[in-house]
Amino acid sequence: MKILEFQSKLREMKIDATIFYSLDTSNVEPNFFYFSGYDGVGALVVPSGSEPFLLAPKMEVEKAKKSRIRNVYIWQKKKMFDSIKIYLKKKRIPSRVIGVDFSAFTMEASNGLKKSFGMAKLKNIGEICRKLRMVKTPEEIAILKEGCKITDRIFEKCMSNFKSFRTESDVSAFLEYETKKLGHDVSFKPIVASGNGSSIPHYSPRNIPLKKGFCVIDFGIKYKGYCTDMTRTVFIGKMSEKETAFYNLVLDSQLAAINASGKGVKCSDVYNACVKKLGKYKKNFIHGLGHGVGVEIHEQPNLKPVGSDILDDNIVFTVEPGIYFPKKFGIRIEDTVALIDEKIEVLTNVKKTI
Amino acid sequence: MKILEFQSKLREMKIDATIFYSLDTSNVEPNFFYFSGYDGVGALVVPSGSEPFLLAPKMEVEKAKKSRIRNVYIWQKKKMFDSIKIYLKKKRIPSRVIGVDFSAFTMEASNGLKKSFGMAKLKNIGEICRKLRMVKTPEEIAILKEGCKITDRIFEKCMSNFKSFRTESDVSAFLEYETKKLGHDVSFKPIVASGNGSSIPHYSPRNIPLKKGFCVIDFGIKYKGYCTDMTRTVFIGKMSEKETAFYNLVLDSQLAAINASGKGVKCSDVYNACVKKLGKYKKNFIHGLGHGVGVEIHEQPNLKPVGSDILDDNIVFTVEPGIYFPKKFGIRIEDTVALIDEKIEVLTNVKKTI
Repeated sequence: MKILEFQSKLREMKIDATIFYSLDTSNVEPNFFYFSGYDGVGALVVPSGSEPFLLAPKMEVEKAKKSRIRNVYIWQKKKMFDSIKIYLKKKRIPSRVIGVDFSAFTMEASNGLKKSFGMAKLKNIGEICRKLRMVKTPEEIAILKEGCKITDRIFEKCMSNFKSFRTESDVSAFLEYETKKLGHDVSFKPIVASGNGSSIPHYSPRNIPLKKGFCVIDFGIKYKGYCTDMTRTVFIGKMSEKETAFYNLVLDSQLAAINASGKGVKCSDVYNACVKKLGKYKKNFIHGLGHGVGVEIHEQPNLKPVGSDILDDNIVFTVEPGIYFPKKFGIRIEDTVALIDEKIEVLTNVKKTI
Repeated sequence: MKILEFQSKLREMKIDATIFYSLDTSNVEPNFFYFSGYDGVGALVVPSGSEPFLLAPKMEVEKAKKSRIRNVYIWQKKKMFDSIKIYLKKKRIPSRVIGVDFSAFTMEASNGLKKSFGMAKLKNIGEICRKLRMVKTPEEIAILKEGCKITDRIFEKCMSNFKSFRTESDVSAFLEYETKKLGHDVSFKPIVASGNGSSIPHYSPRNIPLKKGFCVIDFGIKYKGYCTDMTRTVFIGKMSEKETAFYNLVLDSQLAAINASGKGVKCSDVYNACVKKLGKYKKNFIHGLGHGVGVEIHEQPNLKPVGSDILDDNIVFTVEPGIYFPKKFGIRIEDTVALIDEKIEVLTNVKKTI
């Protein structure tokens, strides 16, 4: 995606070429996948002024050729930087200033690169990549929309089967199972937090019986490499009036945040619109309001009380307020939404009545 | 594990303290988990001459306190290195030479560390950690044995249900589902490669009907943080005599490799014992014979044709020969085995008759 835009940024920064690499197929480097569309092992070189090329192990070249990158060559992983240097030389591409993402490049890689490239200067292009990835292309939005539809269907199937689940692990295993049967992956390990476990935002489901009370279920899939994210809170047993009121408070705050979102709006203002609704319970809201989604589950922008992020067209993000009463219970409601043509479109469509 | 041994190595290398950190719970830094037993977000500091300590976000301190590390403090993630510096100062621990694993430490982290620590010198302790982790403690061996037993049971359940599966994804989703229902995780995405897909060692299961012929199923779980690994090849349909012969050839080569394993034996000799059995089909054996398992799925030693790795007591590793005929079929058989008291113990006990 957006290779041309990226290359024009590189020229501004006087960078000759950038190098991304990914060595672990179970944990693909996000920029590498974003620009190439390839989730295997390999290295991607994006020169500032000529066509990008991909190096991959012999065993994976066939797969790499199906990516967006037209020029694919064979490498030996152990000689990654030597191989890159050879092709840059062949193509007469200068390599005095090399762009890499400092948050993904290890010290080992940096030493290896220096060994092969001698006096090359390294510049950090991590933030440029994150900013580019924040604003989605029509192709990406179409994928995310479809991903959210599939997520909805899996979640609804889970709800229909809810009475057959005995433990928290049963619920999370079901969500993963249904996702994988369709050939997709989950974007993170589903959170299923029942009883007092629901008071911990990042609770891990355990092989223990589902407890009565609120049960927070936070789930997302990875569809064609893009992450979706949603949360619903269900109630096991009979709800009291007070509990209903707490649930409705969170729901109202979520709707207020969605309504406050729009092109040119500061993320901190969206956060504040939500907090205003929560009133005195704002102290029980102990995490960010939301985050961008894309090839990573947490991308820019960041919807938090402070910061300069501003919403723009073609940004896809989550809105997920919650309130938590330590060791008692918690409630969270989360949708993935998209800002398209200055309008908010809610991509998650599982009902929110409890 | 092995903190005291590690600290004595640090003193040999004149390192004042080492720093490990892990920021992503879905991808925990192996050394961080190995030494602390904690799989959450945090930083672990191991001074060469005093007790290690752990820093964790406020939200996760309770969980961190359940780890092996007795001293747990609260930090702010953004100020990771500043926080570490403060506690080192408080404890009067010098920090002129800092050990880090270059293969896990990013350039961003290295820059952050330099900012907080000024003139500190960084030394790479990656290889020391990998060598320590290669030889398991009795506690680790007990976990791996139990993990293999659970793996066997899940795999056997999959075999009993095999006739109900329609697609490759069905099989892999079932394996993951059964693992997760028990509250464990898979150590990698299961490989289910049917028909000509079986000729690709690292094939990804797809949402396509199971094809007739050999079907390679490569599966492992993560039990208490430790990885198991096994492969069986099943046959869908009726096997010809020739196919039976190929299967038995791989099985014989696997048994030969297991028999050749022992204390003090070179890994390359084990590899060669296997290849000898394969005879003219050795050219169809296109990957390593095996690898250590532990907190990572691929650890030392590496059972390959060249290299200096030598087997020793308390090493747990895989033996996984395979033969592949491009675009036709492939066969692989893999057990996890342990070398204990100079004897090989096969930890995988799913039957190998096809």
